[in-house]
Amino acid sequence: MEPILVLMAPGFEEIELTAPVDILRRLGVPVVLAGVQGLQVEGAHGLTMMADVLLSEVQVGAYSGVVLPGGAASWLLRDTPVVLDVVREMHAAGRLVAAICAAPIALEAAGVLSGRTVTCYPAEAVTSDIRSAADISTAPTVTDGNIVTGRGPGAALEFGFALGEYLGKDVASLRQEMCCC
Amino acid sequence: MEPILVLMAPGFEEIELTAPVDILRRLGVPVVLAGVQGLQVEGAHGLTMMADVLLSEVQVGAYSGVVLPGGAASWLLRDTPVVLDVVREMHAAGRLVAAICAAPIALEAAGVLSGRTVTCYPAEAVTSDIRSAADISTAPTVTDGNIVTGRGPGAALEFGFALGEYLGKDVASLRQEMCCC
Repeated sequence: MEPILVLMAPGFEEIELTAPVDILRRLGVPVVLAGVQGLQVEGAHGLTMMADVLLSEVQVGAYSGVVLPGGAASWLLRDTPVVLDVVREMHAAGRLVAAICAAPIALEAAGVLSGRTVTCYPAEAVTSDIRSAADISTAPTVTDGNIVTGRGPGAALEFGFALGEYLGKDVASLRQEMCCC
Repeated sequence: MEPILVLMAPGFEEIELTAPVDILRRLGVPVVLAGVQGLQVEGAHGLTMMADVLLSEVQVGAYSGVVLPGGAASWLLRDTPVVLDVVREMHAAGRLVAAICAAPIALEAAGVLSGRTVTCYPAEAVTSDIRSAADISTAPTVTDGNIVTGRGPGAALEFGFALGEYLGKDVASLRQEMCCC
């Protein structure tokens, strides 16, 4: 399959990026990390990680979907036009569009949440920005068509498993292997 | 307080490093990442992260404890003399010594598990190497005196919270803030 694109912007929540990337790669799903502003990116809690490519060099059509980790990076993702273009193009092709924590605000800004149910966090900072969704859930993860959302860092493993399920992978075995039982 | 030292060796399990670092920093505990072989370290699933210092430059007495993430790195940690020296010196000072997944094999090699209860994973690859422990639990985390162990990547958040509890921090509030409820 074509790889999943994971967006890395300064201030990304480290668990929210690491858990889905780790889980997808364990499931055999190729993942490419795209730096929004550069290749060396510092997270919200001072962990610096390396991207594989610059987002500006990415051909969206070569990817199966896009994942937006949250944290302080969420607002930067929302305010970066090329990010919104990637989300819109992926959505228009019916491919996976996923975000966790506060990052669904970037999906809202891209105009892809109309009539969908999503989860997000923290409620006071985020839900007022998400006006087009049909419902805002407090579930750890929500899959509504091609839109998969996760609630917060404590739900990051579940978010990774939800992405794996959406992609048709054997998540139950991996849960056991990772001691999530 | 003096910072906690987290050891980064090639092949570290990314969630097992990220979750405790993120949680400790959220709790206000300073954390320093020490590269065992270099400052740019690739994890078990291809995520490359940056260390803050080289382990060879660390003064162990300046730290409150040491944390060993697991993954393929566990065997390298076990076979690196300076790692065992750090573990022994920290243990002799009665400070926190922590490891998750397969990394308790390095604590065993350092000779600090005698009579303790620990948890670890995977059983077939690890428990046969841990002969001095009094008991090997299958609990997600075990705190036995200054030795804190975690079972596997699915228990990495719980491992982070166990470290915070050991250090006397308000873990209950953070659980809520991180949507771990």
